[in-house]
Amino acid sequence: MSFKPPIRTLMGPGPSDVYPQVSAALARPTIGHLDPAFVELMDEIKSLLQFAFQTKNELTLPISAPGSAGMEASFVNLIEPGDKVIVCQNGVFGGRMQENVTRLGAQAIMVMDDWGTAVSIDKVQEAVKAHPDACAIAFVHAETSTGVRSDAQALCALAQQHNMLSIVDTVTGLAGIEVAVDDWGADAVYSGTQKCLSCVPGISPITFSSRAQQIIANRKTPVQSWFLDMNLVMGYWGAGVKRAYHHTAPVNAMYALHESLLILKDQGLEASWLKHKNNHLALRAGLEALGLTLVVAEQDRLPQLNAVSVPEGVDEAQVRNKLLSEYNLEIGAGLGQLAGKVWRIGLMGCASKADNVRLCLHALESALAAQGHSIEAGAAISAANAAYASQVN
Amino acid sequence: MSFKPPIRTLMGPGPSDVYPQVSAALARPTIGHLDPAFVELMDEIKSLLQFAFQTKNELTLPISAPGSAGMEASFVNLIEPGDKVIVCQNGVFGGRMQENVTRLGAQAIMVMDDWGTAVSIDKVQEAVKAHPDACAIAFVHAETSTGVRSDAQALCALAQQHNMLSIVDTVTGLAGIEVAVDDWGADAVYSGTQKCLSCVPGISPITFSSRAQQIIANRKTPVQSWFLDMNLVMGYWGAGVKRAYHHTAPVNAMYALHESLLILKDQGLEASWLKHKNNHLALRAGLEALGLTLVVAEQDRLPQLNAVSVPEGVDEAQVRNKLLSEYNLEIGAGLGQLAGKVWRIGLMGCASKADNVRLCLHALESALAAQGHSIEAGAAISAANAAYASQVN
Repeated sequence: MSFKPPIRTLMGPGPSDVYPQVSAALARPTIGHLDPAFVELMDEIKSLLQFAFQTKNELTLPISAPGSAGMEASFVNLIEPGDKVIVCQNGVFGGRMQENVTRLGAQAIMVMDDWGTAVSIDKVQEAVKAHPDACAIAFVHAETSTGVRSDAQALCALAQQHNMLSIVDTVTGLAGIEVAVDDWGADAVYSGTQKCLSCVPGISPITFSSRAQQIIANRKTPVQSWFLDMNLVMGYWGAGVKRAYHHTAPVNAMYALHESLLILKDQGLEASWLKHKNNHLALRAGLEALGLTLVVAEQDRLPQLNAVSVPEGVDEAQVRNKLLSEYNLEIGAGLGQLAGKVWRIGLMGCASKADNVRLCLHALESALAAQGHSIEAGAAISAANAAYASQVN
Repeated sequence: MSFKPPIRTLMGPGPSDVYPQVSAALARPTIGHLDPAFVELMDEIKSLLQFAFQTKNELTLPISAPGSAGMEASFVNLIEPGDKVIVCQNGVFGGRMQENVTRLGAQAIMVMDDWGTAVSIDKVQEAVKAHPDACAIAFVHAETSTGVRSDAQALCALAQQHNMLSIVDTVTGLAGIEVAVDDWGADAVYSGTQKCLSCVPGISPITFSSRAQQIIANRKTPVQSWFLDMNLVMGYWGAGVKRAYHHTAPVNAMYALHESLLILKDQGLEASWLKHKNNHLALRAGLEALGLTLVVAEQDRLPQLNAVSVPEGVDEAQVRNKLLSEYNLEIGAGLGQLAGKVWRIGLMGCASKADNVRLCLHALESALAAQGHSIEAGAAISAANAAYASQVN
């Protein structure tokens, strides 16, 4: 029998709700991956991605696979066996970076920070001094497992000062907070479609600096992945050159990505960041009224992903289940070290809106009350409303 | 501006036309990749893929990326650095297999056959004798670049006799011709969604035998790709175990794959193979009436992909352009050695139907006439019709 998905409100760590226009684009008739009309679309997507990433990088395109493949593409193309890479870990995805580095036969110098805190620039500076022979600094700009933003500008600057490459994970960042690839001087930056772009999951936008592009073109060893070898992918996505077949692009997913980028361009980047910030502030006010606290210190919070401490005595899974079964509302569980300790509430892309903030606060209030936490009815929504009222848009 | 694709008829080497029900499924509301409803869908997809592959293999699932990633998943999981692999090449995709083998630090023993001919069992037998220490035989069951079917049954049997693994590319094969994974005793078999399944491009169904599964679980070295490490992917796709997050599945693409597999199950495998065969026979009759010849010897032809020799004096690109611009009909160009020498006409999935056969013959007749080849008007369609009339369905 055909699968009829339940209609959820997606306020977890992603996928987020998808724009109706994006779903409509997705279902348009498939054309060939070498069709002249598709090649034009590819050019538009490249240019829209340059806009979203704020970069002039020629090598800016969507990888035909999820964000984890974007991460892998960054490492396997830029790093060679025997290289040394400084990897910052303050959550799940820094650990995945380490996996990527070691699996390609390179050495990961780990800089560890507590989960829920930003990457410490001081510690990275020490690591750079201790390992001047490292070729790259890799870090997560927007940690999806904790809701932390790290200082990409400072970390990329540090890499440049020491003639190292910077590899930046902003899967959850793009369109939610500022991503300024050229200003940062970042060398490889990847994201995902299923977060603040409000597109369907499955594609990883990526951009490489011209320095990175040269390094890829002049590697000593072949890229270990044929599928992710940018020397080949480039040949398909073109750079003034005649397109050569590499793999069959996920044509319909590209329609969807294109549509979601058009929406972002129409909104404007600053407006998109402000929207995410304002809804975050309203959610925060409501959560505080519920007696809940955010895990991350104020200055390091991602507005699009709010890690909330589970109060003592509350069965966190039961709360999530109640939200899902009674409100069709998905929020995220904790991951790794934070499993069982936090909820992750996303306000991403088109799911970042006042109605969702109120729905989530109401549902949480009800779920906590069901577990015996007495909360003044409606106080959370009132607090959120007050926060909205104080915002000048 | 939103992208409005032209409405094409896709009779190239893939993507093929997509079932309307599949497009509709694709656009359904996105839900979380760990939603209980999605986990149920994943189980159904696994079981439908087991049906399509004719296997009981537990490790049967869709890779969240195109067929090339399915190929890469097979090699990086089963082969370790230093291993020796017998790779059969009779077209583009055998060459890609060689790339995969060498990029992971293994040695490819190449068995070469002419493009347009099947893999020679005798030559593989010789290679097996000369290299008894090889750990696997890899070959392409359905060569998309030439339209050749090779004898998967015999090649897998040969591998088993010599205690080698078999790795089988059937990207273009699945649902178009018999794929019998358990009967063959194949160890890793991968396909694509965008061919005879008539689903959108972007996903690679794959299956591993229990022997292969054990080998993957007991590797000496880690799988070089984190994204494609089946030890991790398995944890998400489950095997009686609790699902663990690995990557965010392309949720909507999974709706589409599910729908296309339901259609296949409803049709039945034999009926699907017969449909592909009958339309091929009608196309062939029409092509012959046009004075065109197929590249591949009759017994080795894939019914779903017909490589046609470009007649002397014909500008092949001009023909394809005319078909596209005047008939919105896509047929494929030659690839690699066969570039400029052949057209590739696909009759895959829902594009395998009498209307398409007639459209293609009519359009080809007109395009050839425009280049001064005088052909009796309507003869091709008459020949195709006669072929249909002679078929007992």
